[in-house]
Amino acid sequence: MGLVVQKYGGSSVADAEGIKRVAKRIVEAKKNGHQVVVVVSAMGDTTDELIDLAEQVSPMPAGREFDMLLTAGERISMALLAMAIKNLGHEAQSFTGSQAGVITDSVHNKARIIDVTPGRIRTALDEGNIAIVAGFQGVSQDKKDITTLGRGGSDTTAVALAAALDAEVCEIYTDVDGVFTADPRVVPKAKKIDWIAFEDMLELAASGSKVLLHRCVEYARRYNIPIHVRSSFSGLQGTWVSSEPKQGVQQVEQAIISGVAHDTSEAKITVVGVPDKPGEAAVIFRTISDAQVNIDMIVQNVSAASTGLTDISFTLPKAEGRKAIDALEKNKDGIGFESLRYDDQIGKISLVGAGMKTNPGVTADFFTALSDAGVNIELISTSEIRISVVTRADDVNEAVRAVHTAFGLDSDSDEAVVYGGTGR
Amino acid sequence: MGLVVQKYGGSSVADAEGIKRVAKRIVEAKKNGHQVVVVVSAMGDTTDELIDLAEQVSPMPAGREFDMLLTAGERISMALLAMAIKNLGHEAQSFTGSQAGVITDSVHNKARIIDVTPGRIRTALDEGNIAIVAGFQGVSQDKKDITTLGRGGSDTTAVALAAALDAEVCEIYTDVDGVFTADPRVVPKAKKIDWIAFEDMLELAASGSKVLLHRCVEYARRYNIPIHVRSSFSGLQGTWVSSEPKQGVQQVEQAIISGVAHDTSEAKITVVGVPDKPGEAAVIFRTISDAQVNIDMIVQNVSAASTGLTDISFTLPKAEGRKAIDALEKNKDGIGFESLRYDDQIGKISLVGAGMKTNPGVTADFFTALSDAGVNIELISTSEIRISVVTRADDVNEAVRAVHTAFGLDSDSDEAVVYGGTGR
Repeated sequence: MGLVVQKYGGSSVADAEGIKRVAKRIVEAKKNGHQVVVVVSAMGDTTDELIDLAEQVSPMPAGREFDMLLTAGERISMALLAMAIKNLGHEAQSFTGSQAGVITDSVHNKARIIDVTPGRIRTALDEGNIAIVAGFQGVSQDKKDITTLGRGGSDTTAVALAAALDAEVCEIYTDVDGVFTADPRVVPKAKKIDWIAFEDMLELAASGSKVLLHRCVEYARRYNIPIHVRSSFSGLQGTWVSSEPKQGVQQVEQAIISGVAHDTSEAKITVVGVPDKPGEAAVIFRTISDAQVNIDMIVQNVSAASTGLTDISFTLPKAEGRKAIDALEKNKDGIGFESLRYDDQIGKISLVGAGMKTNPGVTADFFTALSDAGVNIELISTSEIRISVVTRADDVNEAVRAVHTAFGLDSDSDEAVVYGGTGR
Repeated sequence: MGLVVQKYGGSSVADAEGIKRVAKRIVEAKKNGHQVVVVVSAMGDTTDELIDLAEQVSPMPAGREFDMLLTAGERISMALLAMAIKNLGHEAQSFTGSQAGVITDSVHNKARIIDVTPGRIRTALDEGNIAIVAGFQGVSQDKKDITTLGRGGSDTTAVALAAALDAEVCEIYTDVDGVFTADPRVVPKAKKIDWIAFEDMLELAASGSKVLLHRCVEYARRYNIPIHVRSSFSGLQGTWVSSEPKQGVQQVEQAIISGVAHDTSEAKITVVGVPDKPGEAAVIFRTISDAQVNIDMIVQNVSAASTGLTDISFTLPKAEGRKAIDALEKNKDGIGFESLRYDDQIGKISLVGAGMKTNPGVTADFFTALSDAGVNIELISTSEIRISVVTRADDVNEAVRAVHTAFGLDSDSDEAVVYGGTGR
């Protein structure tokens, strides 16, 4: 038996009862002969409460101090969890991100991990302890200041520690049973996926699946750390995310479609009347990039020959819409467009699956399903293993259900639709 | 203008409004040209709430993890305070005990400071920042674990930093106006003391005065750091505690009596029927000391010649009574006493003042005052500058008021009672 890293989110440790339940599960893993490292988030709403307090004393909390404040949340949960484990008769020690050797850059509130030096964790394990580590936080390499890792930070902490400690698996405990073929709140017939490849999971995460964040999956793929996403409320097997299917997990060879993701958090900006000449797109996206705005899909329509003008559309998080519009307007003369259109009533539906590109039938079936459901397509974008379309926000749920059914993913389907080829 | 260390307790930063009020006061000191280091406690009831949580997950929280938990409280208050100061347009950085260089021994929950290496604080100050430091906590020298300093820990942090940074003064902000000649809740006519010598303050603290703890005063005396105890809710001068009266503060030469302290937190144990031979007391107090019980007064009565037996009484915190009784009973044969008497309905009244020993009239007047008030004395103990008596708990308030009046300390007295000699 080797080393396992387990990560528990805020909903799993929301109160004293939750902490005691999680402690029992950790002790089970230890009793099964594993060395156990646990990464824990702040209890329930603690982080939100701290943010509220910060806003009461200062309208724009500063980076360094804001991180110092927020990291108190994990400090509380990890200490309580260690106590609960000791109360079950097992040895446990808790470590801050800094003590655990999580070294980051100095970008407060969204630092990136640049190194992990888990010497103290290793010592604690060798002495027979369970190690409890604060998620979401680290210490900056240059200034030795406390940093936080931003969204999905605790998952990333867990994967990074698993990599540095050469763990067998990184178990991500959450309040759902695993990764599903679609969001079960939208598609009641969605099925739990037993195994999914890193690449497919990356596309699902990029396309709006919330269970694992892109950043954490990317880290796991780079270091080839298998992730097991599962519920902290049951003993069920969840979803394995890895490069190769785990032995004993059924690999459904024909299932070249992993799932359907959707996302209604984005908006669309169309730059209208752009001269159709080399370098125009570069100027536009340099402007956007200089404004520190992250964009998602980009589509350029064919230009009308008569005018020599074209339109360029892109999607971006709604929260960054104002910033992008301002930056483009400010550089209107430099870019030379006619007008801007902003639309935040859009949704994105993505079909993800390996080998999709080599099966042209997939794309056709996808569009047919959308068309049969009466859903109009506004933008299309594809990758090796994903097709995404932008539709009206109101059409998203219907579109997801239609696609899910069309590809035989519904739980009452006999089996998934089979295309030629061997899958992967 | 030099460097000042300011310490704010939990009641001063109980909520966002309190934090903003304290921030303004800190900024004032900075505007007056001082370099400012602030030591802050956890907000209001935060520490108690964390203790509650700990008790919910584990009946006997462990030392190391308990410290990790409790230190989250100061982390929150210090980060919020730094944000509030920045919001007023001044630069501030917060530091944990570890970051501030507060090095302690490894005795969790009541660590002692063994060194202070405030390099990061000095740098922050030199760069024009206000430095905010978490009170009550440090890092252990050997294991690099987070420790807490126990009761009065934040005051001690402040004094220790003031010493290490060679501060002009350590200002302790609290919810009262300073140190009084007696507890104003018991003696409404008690007067604020403008200046008091370290030695007298030590005796007052040891005798039950709650404003400053013994340990903090001891540290200040050793490094000769003047302490200014004052209210965070007003701009009034408070009480200066130092080796020499500060210029401009009236030194009342005749006031050889500093004040009257009382304490009802102790119990009395009497070991009855102890053989009156050398070494007996040593065996008893070795037994007590091995049980890690702190004792206060010790009194041995003259033995009755007929029996060759004597009684030994001592006082100790009520909370440690059970432990002491158990330890003595367990070693009954080794000690050879007849029985134990435990009494937790006692109170202690102490009169403190320099030069007392050279003025026999003081002692006589003290006993006369108690007698006139009908208060019976059970034990007596004296030091160079203190007389303490143990009475029934019910008599304490009356006794304190009687003594306060008898020594002319009441605020409507014309002046304090003058004895021969120069005072100090």
